[in-house]
Amino acid sequence: MTGAATVTLTAPPGMPLVRPGDDLAALISTALVAAGVSLQDGDIVVVGQKIVSKAEGRLRNLADVHPGEAARRLAREAEKDPRLVELILAESRRVLRTRPGAIIVEHRLGFVCANAGIDHSNVAGEAAGDESWVLLLPEDPDGSARRLRDQLQRMTGARAAVLVIDSHGRAFRRGTVGVVIGAAGFPCLLDLRGEEDLFGYRLRVTEVGLGDELAAAASMLMGQSAEGRPVVHVRGLLYPERDESSSELLRSAEEDLFR
Amino acid sequence: MTGAATVTLTAPPGMPLVRPGDDLAALISTALVAAGVSLQDGDIVVVGQKIVSKAEGRLRNLADVHPGEAARRLAREAEKDPRLVELILAESRRVLRTRPGAIIVEHRLGFVCANAGIDHSNVAGEAAGDESWVLLLPEDPDGSARRLRDQLQRMTGARAAVLVIDSHGRAFRRGTVGVVIGAAGFPCLLDLRGEEDLFGYRLRVTEVGLGDELAAAASMLMGQSAEGRPVVHVRGLLYPERDESSSELLRSAEEDLFR
Repeated sequence: MTGAATVTLTAPPGMPLVRPGDDLAALISTALVAAGVSLQDGDIVVVGQKIVSKAEGRLRNLADVHPGEAARRLAREAEKDPRLVELILAESRRVLRTRPGAIIVEHRLGFVCANAGIDHSNVAGEAAGDESWVLLLPEDPDGSARRLRDQLQRMTGARAAVLVIDSHGRAFRRGTVGVVIGAAGFPCLLDLRGEEDLFGYRLRVTEVGLGDELAAAASMLMGQSAEGRPVVHVRGLLYPERDESSSELLRSAEEDLFR
Repeated sequence: MTGAATVTLTAPPGMPLVRPGDDLAALISTALVAAGVSLQDGDIVVVGQKIVSKAEGRLRNLADVHPGEAARRLAREAEKDPRLVELILAESRRVLRTRPGAIIVEHRLGFVCANAGIDHSNVAGEAAGDESWVLLLPEDPDGSARRLRDQLQRMTGARAAVLVIDSHGRAFRRGTVGVVIGAAGFPCLLDLRGEEDLFGYRLRVTEVGLGDELAAAASMLMGQSAEGRPVVHVRGLLYPERDESSSELLRSAEEDLFR
């Protein structure tokens, strides 16, 4: 690189409210075109998990959920609706911590997050305003990212990478940040170990969470507007194309000093 | 916002190697101008902590360090140089976890990180290649950010925000990500609690770690080049100007479920 490295992130307006069964790739493609963005090879499309989950029909109505004893007990501890807790448990491998308002779990997808990523979410149409609808994470966010990537390539001809992201709280630090939960065509973990540093005399020991850094970057734009901007287009970031899943970002419980 | 929200990150080339006593604001200002960037009100200048530490003379030579008994004992456990461990302890409030290669501490500045952020760092000039030089974090990174901000305003006339960032490992997830350790003029923690969501029927409960999201975004560009790009200029991000310190991102040990 000789000139200035420049990365541009664009959050197109005009994404409609997404409903179960919607063709998400078509909605994204249309919104990008309307914003004057023509997708190119090497671009990255970052998508908030909520619209992926909605398109995939991951809405559940609490009226249909019958909490068991474990859920009712945990619900008292966490001061939450036992039906919601039943769904949280069904989406989780195990509960790590509980405090009023939050149940920190190891999600079935492997990451640690609050309330299994389930949210009383915005629901469009006839169900709007009905607090009994909640939204689960996508069944297989890596698969969702792969399908979106392939569909966008068919529609536009361009081979872009796709990230599906969510916002997670963290140990030690306040504030949620964007993190990757699904990826296609992007190296979420960049292994710099063995590369020489600036002076050529020392080997680096770092693995960089590049996917999470990009998720955080895109998340800034998604949160910038009260109307919601669930899609962010990224251009200019150099990265080696790889087909690893987002799971390379997950530290196993055995390797983790804080679980 | 009606049009597409666009954020542009630029990592100017041509930052020289920084030495103790250098006028960092002048070096940054020159590099920005050379890259064709004219600083404007509302821009954000993100600076890697290493060049701040170097300019402030935070280099230490291990030959001058005499480890005590606590450092020698911890060094055996962590398989580290006892002199380095002595410095780590001096920069820390307490040790949280230890494993071979890493001592996880609560830094005197309040955040949790490995090895108190001390690195066998690149040293320029006559000391190049000497592995006995290490670099501590800035004494007061919020103060460093404030001074840089004021100096940049005097030089350019523009009131930009300044972030000083480092790369930290994390609980639960692999890979380091950029995080804020010093800030001036930027709301590191954005409190959305009490705002209505998209459908106007539910109050949000989220605090967003906007400073860390921007640190992660800038960190992507800093890591993009073997030559090192320790400065990233950001334009287009909307944020309320606030003079909070970066410490608002720190979760207290009492509030933390994982310490």
